[in-house]
Amino acid sequence: MRLDGPVLVVGAGLLGTSIGLALRAAGVEVALADVSEENLRIATGLGAGTPEDVTPQLVVVAVPPDHLAEEITLALRETDAVVTDVGSVKAAPLRAVSAQVDEAALRRYVGSHPMAGSERSGPFAASGALFDGRPWAVTPHEHADPDAVALVTALAEVCGATPVVFTPAEHDRAVARTSHLPHLLAALVAGRLTDAPREHLALSGQGVRDVTRIAAGDPGLWQQIIAANTEALTVLLQDVRGDIDVLLTALADDDRARVAALLDRGVEGTAVIPGKHGGPTVAEGTLFVAVPDHPGELARLFADATEIGVNIEDVHIDHDPARPVGLVELSVATDAVDHLVESLESRGWTTHR
Amino acid sequence: MRLDGPVLVVGAGLLGTSIGLALRAAGVEVALADVSEENLRIATGLGAGTPEDVTPQLVVVAVPPDHLAEEITLALRETDAVVTDVGSVKAAPLRAVSAQVDEAALRRYVGSHPMAGSERSGPFAASGALFDGRPWAVTPHEHADPDAVALVTALAEVCGATPVVFTPAEHDRAVARTSHLPHLLAALVAGRLTDAPREHLALSGQGVRDVTRIAAGDPGLWQQIIAANTEALTVLLQDVRGDIDVLLTALADDDRARVAALLDRGVEGTAVIPGKHGGPTVAEGTLFVAVPDHPGELARLFADATEIGVNIEDVHIDHDPARPVGLVELSVATDAVDHLVESLESRGWTTHR
Repeated sequence: MRLDGPVLVVGAGLLGTSIGLALRAAGVEVALADVSEENLRIATGLGAGTPEDVTPQLVVVAVPPDHLAEEITLALRETDAVVTDVGSVKAAPLRAVSAQVDEAALRRYVGSHPMAGSERSGPFAASGALFDGRPWAVTPHEHADPDAVALVTALAEVCGATPVVFTPAEHDRAVARTSHLPHLLAALVAGRLTDAPREHLALSGQGVRDVTRIAAGDPGLWQQIIAANTEALTVLLQDVRGDIDVLLTALADDDRARVAALLDRGVEGTAVIPGKHGGPTVAEGTLFVAVPDHPGELARLFADATEIGVNIEDVHIDHDPARPVGLVELSVATDAVDHLVESLESRGWTTHR
Repeated sequence: MRLDGPVLVVGAGLLGTSIGLALRAAGVEVALADVSEENLRIATGLGAGTPEDVTPQLVVVAVPPDHLAEEITLALRETDAVVTDVGSVKAAPLRAVSAQVDEAALRRYVGSHPMAGSERSGPFAASGALFDGRPWAVTPHEHADPDAVALVTALAEVCGATPVVFTPAEHDRAVARTSHLPHLLAALVAGRLTDAPREHLALSGQGVRDVTRIAAGDPGLWQQIIAANTEALTVLLQDVRGDIDVLLTALADDDRARVAALLDRGVEGTAVIPGKHGGPTVAEGTLFVAVPDHPGELARLFADATEIGVNIEDVHIDHDPARPVGLVELSVATDAVDHLVESLESRGWTTHR
């Protein structure tokens, strides 16, 4: 089923406004609604759509988790359009909507969840490119109209994303493991830092920074996500509590084999995560380059890498405010590391692996 | 006390060889020893020192945790030098050494721990710049000779690191929280991914990748580190188990306030981590730039940023193998974001915040 529009986007936050921008860029007519006049003003100002009344082909509900069921129900009652939402949890809102509307209306509802976001929120952070190449879960229930499923799939594609089909329950179990559990444990690790004497934190390295980064996310939003996915999260948290009990017993008994087994399983776990955007994992090697800490030097490094002809897959700058030299970590294809190291050294850069 | 050398480095792995390289670069004579002839050949070939017999001023023991006490004891018995080690845990080896040598010998031992490393190991991964600007814990026991403390402090400084003094027990409590607990919980989160149906992992985003990255570290080494820091880790793991019980009860009771309190403490925790290298946290803002995926474009972006005159604090490239455009995330001082966005847009770049 073709997405011809108009599309009504309910909720002009980060996701709703980004969807509006992506659809407008594809020439699809977009109407925007939001309880916040400020959000609406910003989103329309960015060109994500207009606040006019339309008879929509598709309604996209992009509101916080606590208001999903209410807004989906309203859209099914007040329009004859296909309705989707972009919430992080799928089964609980579906249950709530099913209790409110008849089966004919429910057929028009197909949930979805783009795997994209930002640590920032609101329409100012929006971008039509937000979904480029990202997975976008489409989660039809058993009574969903195949045309409605096709239209929501088309929405994901028009926004530049890759649709992936899950049942609502499967989706929730998947994100409990790949998103909600990591978020909660990152929050617990970070929370334990607040008990530490300040001077102990001087020994914080890159590891603890990486593990805790996502714990800085909006607690108001995350509290709603967690409350909506209690069932799947409870199972996983019980599993982790079991793992911790195993660890505590192993530490008390000096049972190295049990500790090693848990560490080995962790190594395996890091290897099963697919490459970025769901693509295959690319074998990457890293090297470090010492770079004098002013803007021109970084540009010179990238210009040299260009001339050397090696594609940089990722960059990390370890910036030291106390010293005039920073360490730049470059990730490149494994078989390009030697060549890049030699070529950079011959151009006078100090490198190490 | 001046570090004049010679220095005997026992263990020519990543840390030992890097220390040799840093000392040689400062003109200090270095002798290397290793049970592996291969490691010794590589390390001497890199110029980290020579395998000759010397009468050392300082012995640096850089062997795996399980062999620390044995090699420190040997060095105290066979030389009159000051002896240090660079192991990740300090109290357990000190206890073992104290039981083996008399108090006069023990006065010459001062433990230390540079906060630097790499996911790679062995002398090939070594670099004289490995410690540049990093914290280096110096952990004197109560009977340590002040001259010995001064000499180990000088070692850290000559290697380019910033010495930070802790008691051995304090050091171990600090790294249990900032390093060993994050490692174990990252391993548990990663380990739970191995149970998942493969298709669920398509929904893995950047969050779970960051949380689990360190879980890929060498299990053989980490098992030794954990076994040597059982006491401090047990307390922290019990705390986390308590947190998980609170969470499970809160989920069962739909007690949002308890969940919110744990999430809020996580946000606080991310804010107390000092800036990289222990420096102050700099307020940074981020912006995204769409960059065509070939080498010259990245160089052009950095050249433009240079001309615009904004210093890039960090870079992250979200590289999508399936599309010709990547998203480059730039971190710059908060008050420079607007200027950089406008200036890049005016040069034809597509940006978003």
